Amino acid sequence: MPTPSATPVSPACAGAPATRATAPPVSPAAVGRALADLRAHAPLVHCLTNHVVAHWTANVLLAVGAQPTMVDNVEEAGPSARRADALLINLGTPQESTTAATAHAVAAAERAGTPWVLDPVGVGGLVWRTRTALDLLARHRPTIVRGNASEVLALRGGAGGRGPESVDDVATAIPAADALAREHAAVVAVSGATDFLTDGARALRLANGTPLLTRITGGGCALGALMAAFSAVTPDPLLAATAATATLTVAAEHAAARSTGPGSFAVALLDDLAALTPTSASDQVRLEAQR
Amino acid sequence: MPTPSATPVSPACAGAPATRATAPPVSPAAVGRALADLRAHAPLVHCLTNHVVAHWTANVLLAVGAQPTMVDNVEEAGPSARRADALLINLGTPQESTTAATAHAVAAAERAGTPWVLDPVGVGGLVWRTRTALDLLARHRPTIVRGNASEVLALRGGAGGRGPESVDDVATAIPAADALAREHAAVVAVSGATDFLTDGARALRLANGTPLLTRITGGGCALGALMAAFSAVTPDPLLAATAATATLTVAAEHAAARSTGPGSFAVALLDDLAALTPTSASDQVRLEAQR
Amino acid sequence: MPTPSATPVSPACAGAPATRATAPPVSPAAVGRALADLRAHAPLVHCLTNHVVAHWTANVLLAVGAQPTMVDNVEEAGPSARRADALLINLGTPQESTTAATAHAVAAAERAGTPWVLDPVGVGGLVWRTRTALDLLARHRPTIVRGNASEVLALRGGAGGRGPESVDDVATAIPAADALAREHAAVVAVSGATDFLTDGARALRLANGTPLLTRITGGGCALGALMAAFSAVTPDPLLAATAATATLTVAAEHAAARSTGPGSFAVALLDDLAALTPTSASDQVRLEAQR
Repeated sequence: MPTPSATPVSPACAGAPATRATAPPVSPAAVGRALADLRAHAPLVHCLTNHVVAHWTANVLLAVGAQPTMVDNVEEAGPSARRADALLINLGTPQESTTAATAHAVAAAERAGTPWVLDPVGVGGLVWRTRTALDLLARHRPTIVRGNASEVLALRGGAGGRGPESVDDVATAIPAADALAREHAAVVAVSGATDFLTDGARALRLANGTPLLTRITGGGCALGALMAAFSAVTPDPLLAATAATATLTVAAEHAAARSTGPGSFAVALLDDLAALTPTSASDQVRLEAQR
Repeated sequence: MPTPSATPVSPACAGAPATRATAPPVSPAAVGRALADLRAHAPLVHCLTNHVVAHWTANVLLAVGAQPTMVDNVEEAGPSARRADALLINLGTPQESTTAATAHAVAAAERAGTPWVLDPVGVGGLVWRTRTALDLLARHRPTIVRGNASEVLALRGGAGGRGPESVDDVATAIPAADALAREHAAVVAVSGATDFLTDGARALRLANGTPLLTRITGGGCALGALMAAFSAVTPDPLLAATAATATLTVAAEHAAARSTGPGSFAVALLDDLAALTPTSASDQVRLEAQR
Repeated sequence: MPTPSATPVSPACAGAPATRATAPPVSPAAVGRALADLRAHAPLVHCLTNHVVAHWTANVLLAVGAQPTMVDNVEEAGPSARRADALLINLGTPQESTTAATAHAVAAAERAGTPWVLDPVGVGGLVWRTRTALDLLARHRPTIVRGNASEVLALRGGAGGRGPESVDDVATAIPAADALAREHAAVVAVSGATDFLTDGARALRLANGTPLLTRITGGGCALGALMAAFSAVTPDPLLAATAATATLTVAAEHAAARSTGPGSFAVALLDDLAALTPTSASDQVRLEAQR
């Protein structure tokens, strides 16, 4: 396993000094500390997510040491978001009622100063959710936006994927991610074989993971939920997004090593999210500065 | 594993005679017989439950030997409840439509003399579901009410938990549980590290289980569903609630012994619910009289 | 394991020549080729299914090598169906909104020439979904209709089951299945211990499987989704339905052989769906001509 400084880096910005190019803006040690903080605080994460992954997402949060709450009706979404430590908005299977609940939850979270994550599943190809996502971005400021390359491109006018999977490479979405991050003062995380994370000024890549994460439903959705959980325990959204990605993908590497297919992988992933130590997370995460 | 009579008991009512204090009002043998009856009758359990645990709940019921049906629309909830052997109402993720369906299902169940269980997930902290739960209790008579300590306290005016987890000890909720049971002529079951069950006159504690039940989503929701299933095969609701708790928590002990984390525990729990014999249930349940 | 030609066959049509009676209208080799084609094309399958099995269904499709998309709102169901390679309509937990979305999706699929599968879960016993199913059959032409015996009988005026399980034998539903198939120019698949599949002219039985498929939620629902996936890669709907049934039931036999109960069976089934080779599918499927 390469250490971060031993990993070849292709700086996106050729003029950047060599020292900035080789030291990622988030350190592996900070990732480990964030995981320890999450376990110590067990943040309450309010998830307005799609019904396909609701059970899985709640189990991921419990496994890692957070507390999920999944209230998605108009009456209670605002009050629930107000008392939570973080909020996740995932647009996977919107209905009229849950979309209205989303608006209440986001408004309540922002009034309370609570961090929130936008996971714009499937935007671009489908008009309604794309309008919802753009409207949220126009009126509010998410702490973190997480999507695959096609989804991030779609938030800047791209066509999106055909289904929930990306049809674009992570590298293709880097300019859009940087622009989005600067425009909305948010961290933007582009998920893929190598993850790209940026806050518009600082950027990094994360090279952990396994293809099995694409053979189960809700790998990306779980990542969005973990980003919300970590955003409750650190004031640095880039650290939160990085620690969440590291936690999921390092645990996924452990799980893949003892799985015989996607079913046993999903089970092992929950076990390994619970078993992952801060030391393993910081030792095994493969971070690279992007510029 | 202590036998019930060897377990130290602190009688809640100091004036109670010694013999009543040491013999629980439900016997381990009756628990075993109830499980055998459930397997023999395979009751059809109509679940109006939250969408997060719907799949899990149906699998728990199938594993133990019952038949689930999960109809939650306004048009069909009444007819479905009418033909079922028992009904579960779980308020975890209410929507307008499912709340309306709940009212139809409860009315149909009561007209048919069908037992029903109320699981008031998250009441207290959230206004809408609290009103729904109190309204159901004002107009109808559930066979069993199951909740954690905070939820049971909230039905008597308490503040409730912050999320779906309890912030109160089971012991704190005993007076509220007894009062609720007497007021509504229902069994009230307070879930926790030690479970407390009362019908207002008879009360007992059950000391099985594993902390892993709190690391997966829907441990309590599964318990409510099992109580509905058992209420279809015994006329004594206190036995139904006790047998359900024993079945889940003894199977959970078996599952915990061969699990490596919350993911493998949930899988093993389904296997062990299917494998649990009436003899193991009666031999391993740890019942204590409460007064 | 008997080869198809060695299996005793009771021809439904006594006048059929002996050679037709012993050679099933779909060959094991064609089943294997269909699985290879599915893996090669990874079809996008749009599922409008019940919320109980949505997560499970998506994982089954990913495991076998297809791509799920689960959009079920009125705004996006039509556009999503239009771009998908196949569509699944499963009536397990209808709501007003998803029923409206179903109508849009079916219309869009038919306009695009996209194959679609109707899984009429629970029809007969429940009025609303029965009307929805009959209305879909009156206005549209599904590629495949899949149900248990009670559901297939209910589409011809039968009473249906009491819950989601069948109360009728597969054999009892054969005349209704044949009549439905001819009337709607569709393949009708009756699921049970032995599966019966017919396009009104050709018919066959498939004798793989395990009782564990009835001890987990969504065995039948997964089969409907797989039929949709296979219908995207072959122009012969009888082959699509047969290949889907073979894939699920042969993988289920593999999974049952290494499971200790319903929980571990469901996990192993996902692994074995991913691991199943076209050669294993064609070697192990037990097909018999019906007439």
